[in-house]
Amino acid sequence: MWYGRWGGARELNDVFLRVCRGRADGRVPVWFMRQAGRYQPEYRELRRRHSLLDICRQPSLCATVTKLPVEQLGVDAAILFSDIMVPLEPMGVRFEIREGVGPVVAEPLRDARAVAALRTLEPERDVPFVLETVERLKAELDVPLIGFSGAPFTLASYLVEGGPSRDQRETKKLMYGRPDVWHALLSTLTGAMAAYLTAQVRAGAAAVQVFDSWAGALAPRDYDRYVRPHMERLFEALRPLGVPRILFSANGGALLERFGAVGADVVSVDWRVPLDVARRRLGGVPLQGNLDPVALLAPWDEIARQVEAILAEGSGGPHIFNLGHGVLPETDPAVLKRVVELVHGKGSG
Amino acid sequence: MWYGRWGGARELNDVFLRVCRGRADGRVPVWFMRQAGRYQPEYRELRRRHSLLDICRQPSLCATVTKLPVEQLGVDAAILFSDIMVPLEPMGVRFEIREGVGPVVAEPLRDARAVAALRTLEPERDVPFVLETVERLKAELDVPLIGFSGAPFTLASYLVEGGPSRDQRETKKLMYGRPDVWHALLSTLTGAMAAYLTAQVRAGAAAVQVFDSWAGALAPRDYDRYVRPHMERLFEALRPLGVPRILFSANGGALLERFGAVGADVVSVDWRVPLDVARRRLGGVPLQGNLDPVALLAPWDEIARQVEAILAEGSGGPHIFNLGHGVLPETDPAVLKRVVELVHGKGSG
Repeated sequence: MWYGRWGGARELNDVFLRVCRGRADGRVPVWFMRQAGRYQPEYRELRRRHSLLDICRQPSLCATVTKLPVEQLGVDAAILFSDIMVPLEPMGVRFEIREGVGPVVAEPLRDARAVAALRTLEPERDVPFVLETVERLKAELDVPLIGFSGAPFTLASYLVEGGPSRDQRETKKLMYGRPDVWHALLSTLTGAMAAYLTAQVRAGAAAVQVFDSWAGALAPRDYDRYVRPHMERLFEALRPLGVPRILFSANGGALLERFGAVGADVVSVDWRVPLDVARRRLGGVPLQGNLDPVALLAPWDEIARQVEAILAEGSGGPHIFNLGHGVLPETDPAVLKRVVELVHGKGSG
Repeated sequence: MWYGRWGGARELNDVFLRVCRGRADGRVPVWFMRQAGRYQPEYRELRRRHSLLDICRQPSLCATVTKLPVEQLGVDAAILFSDIMVPLEPMGVRFEIREGVGPVVAEPLRDARAVAALRTLEPERDVPFVLETVERLKAELDVPLIGFSGAPFTLASYLVEGGPSRDQRETKKLMYGRPDVWHALLSTLTGAMAAYLTAQVRAGAAAVQVFDSWAGALAPRDYDRYVRPHMERLFEALRPLGVPRILFSANGGALLERFGAVGADVVSVDWRVPLDVARRRLGGVPLQGNLDPVALLAPWDEIARQVEAILAEGSGGPHIFNLGHGVLPETDPAVLKRVVELVHGKGSG
């Protein structure tokens, strides 16, 4: 923890926020998606006694888990430990998180009746534990806290498929076959996520990341027709909060221009699109990414070569170093720490 | 079957080959990946008595299966019914094709010893049934026959992972950690596929398609370092055959320029990249694609809208209409036939 000139006041490491706002100053902040997770022995130990959702629901535990990678790795931002499905439970969705699979929904939602039955999310009433966790973290962290939610399309995909899907078959069938039901569903989810992220920011989150993990399954013309209006509404609803809005998608390379156009302040890019290519396509939008998480399982020389290539490709504008997807469970924590040091050394050089 | 002016001589419908060679004439040929498969009642009936590999190994059956969609749908090309794993068995790989999963390899191949143990493929000795099937089809079809193989990377991925993989973790670990073993493996597979495709063309295939289904999992810099030299060698080995060489990849949008550069005469694009965007990136290279196979499960109006959008996007140059991936088993054969008619009507307009 850093202390400022005026006694006990903590000095916030704000390089992440500065880069989100386009003020690069040559420094490259770094954090990792799933930086709290199964690669950490401490997390695995905790998970022997608590389910993932238990941890999300207990502010003290959840704050501890969120802080651990900040303390251990020296990353420049924390991200709330949670799951994108958490706010859906009070909306009436029953699900479980299955190890190695992801969310599995008890009753997939595929008709107008099921969409109409979704309850309105009131974050203060429905997910007070999330907001209490954010408040604790705001008081305890010396790096910015990133709040997050799923994007309407990705949440809808879990709800309609009933779990992760290779080709989003049921989701697209609903989208094409019952556009009225589809738009009602996305509209409901958009309103709920706007309320959820707004509450996180009011509780102390300094930035938000919207995870549209599955949007890359869509043809651009389908994105424009079935998803984009909802994303524009979501990002517009978040604008008055004044915090950076990051948009993440895996495998969404063909949609990059659209991610900028819907209102994202920062676009998270995966390893499939080099950052210099992404920057040409997105103009001045700050970029986040884009190491392949599998590369962290390589020998160090290969990892270092890739990190340096990414720093070079990202050097033409504001860049937040991250992975293109979450840290894999078999990743060595010492390797992540070494990557942070390499980025910080390079970034401030 | 069509008959020419000189009695019994069949007249070949060569519009597919003409478009492959860049002579568009405003006509758009059409065929579908997996146009022979489980969506057909006749195929399902056959599969009650024969395994997929049984069919591949019996020229009479295999030719019948290959021809059926040509007769039923009126497509402009046939593609040999087979599986990319077929030539690997005589090389010493034991595998089975599991329904709904794909190839499952008995002993995943992850070290130098296993790579060295792979036997050289001699198509005439090792897969005579494939060549006999091609010869029969050459004599019986009035549309061009497309031969095919897996690409070295995609075959290596099945061999190293032991089956389909979400993130190609073991494949990339071998690639990064043992580049010597990796390049030996890809070099062996490249030589084998060059021999395999050459034999198919000598037996009568009028074009070849190389399936690099998993290449889209790679960062472009990894593609350049670990895959591209082998693809260049493969396409160079095929050049003297004088037949169009089509390169397919799912999810390979970020690699399009590279697919052109390794020597593909035609690049097959999936629905994630609109054809007009692909054409700008690939210059004059003829394009194949790119309807989302899930869209075929939509109401007809939506399908027609998408087919027409794709025809418009593809109209700036040579275009072969196809899907971005294989036909799904729940597709209605009548819908496929209607798509062929729509493409033909539009294409010749």
